[in-house]
Amino acid sequence: MFELHERLEQDSMLIGHLNLCQVRLSKDARYPWLILIPERNDIKEIHHLGNADQRLLMQESCQVAQVMEAVLSPDKINVASLGNMVPQLHLHHVARFASDDAWPGPIWGAHPALLESEHELEQKSHQWQQWLSRVEGFVVG
Amino acid sequence: MFELHERLEQDSMLIGHLNLCQVRLSKDARYPWLILIPERNDIKEIHHLGNADQRLLMQESCQVAQVMEAVLSPDKINVASLGNMVPQLHLHHVARFASDDAWPGPIWGAHPALLESEHELEQKSHQWQQWLSRVEGFVVG
Repeated sequence: MFELHERLEQDSMLIGHLNLCQVRLSKDARYPWLILIPERNDIKEIHHLGNADQRLLMQESCQVAQVMEAVLSPDKINVASLGNMVPQLHLHHVARFASDDAWPGPIWGAHPALLESEHELEQKSHQWQQWLSRVEGFVVG
Repeated sequence: MFELHERLEQDSMLIGHLNLCQVRLSKDARYPWLILIPERNDIKEIHHLGNADQRLLMQESCQVAQVMEAVLSPDKINVASLGNMVPQLHLHHVARFASDDAWPGPIWGAHPALLESEHELEQKSHQWQQWLSRVEGFVVG
């Protein structure tokens, strides 16, 4: 049984699943920000995944980035495995705009999270579920 | 003919080549920091690479991260494709320590680069060449 780190649970919302990863939406409304978490316990680094899982992660990451690019036309997509605070492997995907609050710096640590109402978050989550439905293997929830 | 972005040329030093990427050492001595640059022109995002190149990038990234972990035993490895300032696709690999200057924040933008003498940089570069020689397909220079 996969166990999600409580900090990821708290700071993001489940959108759906791909073959390897659960896809979560960051609750920080400053940036369009999805997080892919391989459902494997006790993995801290990408290279700790088996070869087949590494390939799946690359594929799922690219599929998610492609959707982000198609629906939002960002200036750049930031893809990052940092994990200095939350050791469970998770891969950030952030659509960046030259007009956003942290540009051109990294978003992490730049500003406190901008939280929205539960209703707004739900709406955004549904929107992402719709957008991601074009990805092969994506399942809502 | 692959053309390297002048900012990457200026801020890092060529260590060697893998099948897809050139491997460069950041001149910022604050952190052990390697940069993988796929030798493909006009690519800005990982998902713009072809499928075979995506797989190669994952493989080479994991090989480099594995060496970093083996020789430095860092607390975490940060792997990131940001590129808000330099649009040419490049993948950072930074060995992070709880004792480093930016921990637990991201390194980008945290501090001005700490530059060393040409001699020290050469020595570090040789050291990395030696360490990376265990990676299949790695060629110095």
